[in-house]
Amino acid sequence: MAKISPFAPKRLPALPAIDGVRLAACAAGIRYPGRTDLLLALFDAGTTVAGVLTRSKTASAAVEWCREHLRHGMARALVVNSGNANAFTGMRGREAVKQTAHAAAEVANCLDADVYIASTGVIGEPLDPGKFIGFLSDLADKAEADAYEMAGRAIMTTDTFPKLATRSCHIDGVDVTINGIAKGAGMIEPDMATMLAFMFTDAAIEPKALHEVMAPLVKDSFNAITIDSDTSTSDTALLFATGAAANRGAPRISDGDDPRLKGFRAALFAVMRELAHQIVKDGEGLTKFVTVTVTGAETEDAARAIAKSIGNSPLVKTALAGEDPNWGRIVMAVGKAGEAADRDRLAIWFGDIAVAKDGEVAPSYREEQGATYMKRPEIEITVDVGVGAERATIWTCDLTKEYIAINADYRS
Amino acid sequence: MAKISPFAPKRLPALPAIDGVRLAACAAGIRYPGRTDLLLALFDAGTTVAGVLTRSKTASAAVEWCREHLRHGMARALVVNSGNANAFTGMRGREAVKQTAHAAAEVANCLDADVYIASTGVIGEPLDPGKFIGFLSDLADKAEADAYEMAGRAIMTTDTFPKLATRSCHIDGVDVTINGIAKGAGMIEPDMATMLAFMFTDAAIEPKALHEVMAPLVKDSFNAITIDSDTSTSDTALLFATGAAANRGAPRISDGDDPRLKGFRAALFAVMRELAHQIVKDGEGLTKFVTVTVTGAETEDAARAIAKSIGNSPLVKTALAGEDPNWGRIVMAVGKAGEAADRDRLAIWFGDIAVAKDGEVAPSYREEQGATYMKRPEIEITVDVGVGAERATIWTCDLTKEYIAINADYRS
Repeated sequence: MAKISPFAPKRLPALPAIDGVRLAACAAGIRYPGRTDLLLALFDAGTTVAGVLTRSKTASAAVEWCREHLRHGMARALVVNSGNANAFTGMRGREAVKQTAHAAAEVANCLDADVYIASTGVIGEPLDPGKFIGFLSDLADKAEADAYEMAGRAIMTTDTFPKLATRSCHIDGVDVTINGIAKGAGMIEPDMATMLAFMFTDAAIEPKALHEVMAPLVKDSFNAITIDSDTSTSDTALLFATGAAANRGAPRISDGDDPRLKGFRAALFAVMRELAHQIVKDGEGLTKFVTVTVTGAETEDAARAIAKSIGNSPLVKTALAGEDPNWGRIVMAVGKAGEAADRDRLAIWFGDIAVAKDGEVAPSYREEQGATYMKRPEIEITVDVGVGAERATIWTCDLTKEYIAINADYRS
Repeated sequence: MAKISPFAPKRLPALPAIDGVRLAACAAGIRYPGRTDLLLALFDAGTTVAGVLTRSKTASAAVEWCREHLRHGMARALVVNSGNANAFTGMRGREAVKQTAHAAAEVANCLDADVYIASTGVIGEPLDPGKFIGFLSDLADKAEADAYEMAGRAIMTTDTFPKLATRSCHIDGVDVTINGIAKGAGMIEPDMATMLAFMFTDAAIEPKALHEVMAPLVKDSFNAITIDSDTSTSDTALLFATGAAANRGAPRISDGDDPRLKGFRAALFAVMRELAHQIVKDGEGLTKFVTVTVTGAETEDAARAIAKSIGNSPLVKTALAGEDPNWGRIVMAVGKAGEAADRDRLAIWFGDIAVAKDGEVAPSYREEQGATYMKRPEIEITVDVGVGAERATIWTCDLTKEYIAINADYRS
């Protein structure tokens, strides 16, 4: 078992109940005995759903299922299993998803199409739903409104802490809550740094509007983090809105641009970004949480590409692991990104320390300053590439021997 | 000092003299005392040159110098220093290149513009050419025609063996020789996995034709290798052609498509590919030499992008280090490349072992077969993505704890 992340929270937040959501989990023995590996969430009738799924060309059968059913945007159940990703399993994989959806639809008393599914774990091994669908009825019976911590734990693999976040806001003067759970980078098997994130709210928002609110927020939350540049076949982020707040007078919103969603949008973004940060903070073998901001780029996309080039560079990441203020590697990573950058106007900061300016080391910079700064657990790197006014921020971690140990061990 | 690569050749090849080329090296003390760090190559009048340089947007001053002077394509001297990359050093960096070229031009009795320069080492520290230009005159005096091994050693940094290759061929019935030296991935400082490659031949080929022959060969040699996905600010490959074979009756060739270059092109490609393979075989901390071939792609570029996505994936590379036949990670890497691929027609082989077929594990595959295969030092991974007829091959190595140790240590 991997060591607990140095960034694990000292206290887990207590997530409040959300009207219309009930949760339950159990140990179904999908891969390992005695470990919770099956989550069922049930939603009241009228719940809407929006989501963003992996762009992988080898996406899993569960991802394909969700992509299809997100089009109608209504949800009554969510089933998540760990231990087996049911990815690259051909026709049998599609069959397993159908069977799971059908079994969950029976206990939720809904259409198969109202069931959403996510699987994480080993790739390429057929998943036998017969192993766990028998548990769904029992889970439905014991599902509770405040079981978020149990839910967060049930979707963990080698995550060393459950990822939980909550915010409240007002929509037209009515209190609304948003809860989120996520799993991140790290599996004992080990196979895939699959990211799963599920958000729940009692806001009343029509499917199209829900998508319009949520989808753009992914860019600067879940899509702005990188552990090791690898993209899972199963990455899934779903937002379920039960609409129960309408019983307390909240409006039913059908337009993503409705100005009454301003507070909701901010609160949802806060939940998504907090979950994203927690995922990085539980990256395999990490010792540093690193914020990379690129300014002065031609476009926001270029800024993000340069920031990711820095955040994904093995040479930058190993320097961070070694607490080496090796800014030459940052210059290299800017150069290899292929986006416009003016070498002779390039500037680099570690926190507030000016390291490089006008394309060479800053006159005031002393190596000791950088070396001292690098000993911090949280590192901020800012780079101005000197060609425009656009910017972007991403979050990443360092690359350590522990990462290699976790991922080079033979699957057991 | 790093351990010698397990792929170091038992015997170094003996490179023959090439008429019109003389070489010498010395320890100028640029960064470390007692280590050869300065190479001077002198070329007879009439020598032509072609080259391919890094596409980095933060390319070094030496790269800019070479890019400018390759346009006229004539060469009389090459100066290479290790220990300091003279990259990201602003105006002072450009001044250092000018001074170096001027000093070398004096000893070679040529124009400054006929001098080519490459630097490798730490980034961002001003390079003082005063430290080494005093040695150039002595190097010119003692330069010899058969000093290739010394030259290969002088440009090493943390390379654990010198990279040397030679081939001969005929141009219109006349014997011609091509020698090559290279340095690869690994620097004690450590900073940059800079690739430098220098090829020398006595063929008589005009600059434009020389470029037309050489440049396309880079794609499947130096550009088809990846150690860690990072691209240096200083990557440089130059080919010098003295034309001395014309004295023995070889034709002077002015058209890159001249059919008499067929044998030369093949021999040059063999030298370039052999040097490229040697660079991978000296990758930092490697234990596996890995050939990745992608077939069935829509375009050759798509095949190469998918192959690089596999070869650069930290999860694939750590699995290779752990001798884990974890083909699920290969599926993931195909998916994240973003190029067209048919998940349900995907096939994977380890050597001749069919691992996956039609989008799922091959019925005949047994995990023990893969586990046994992975124990080999040289691994061949072939993936058919099932959408077209194009293919590409790249070479890479595994990602080990030793890589982290080499690159996370503080610069000393």
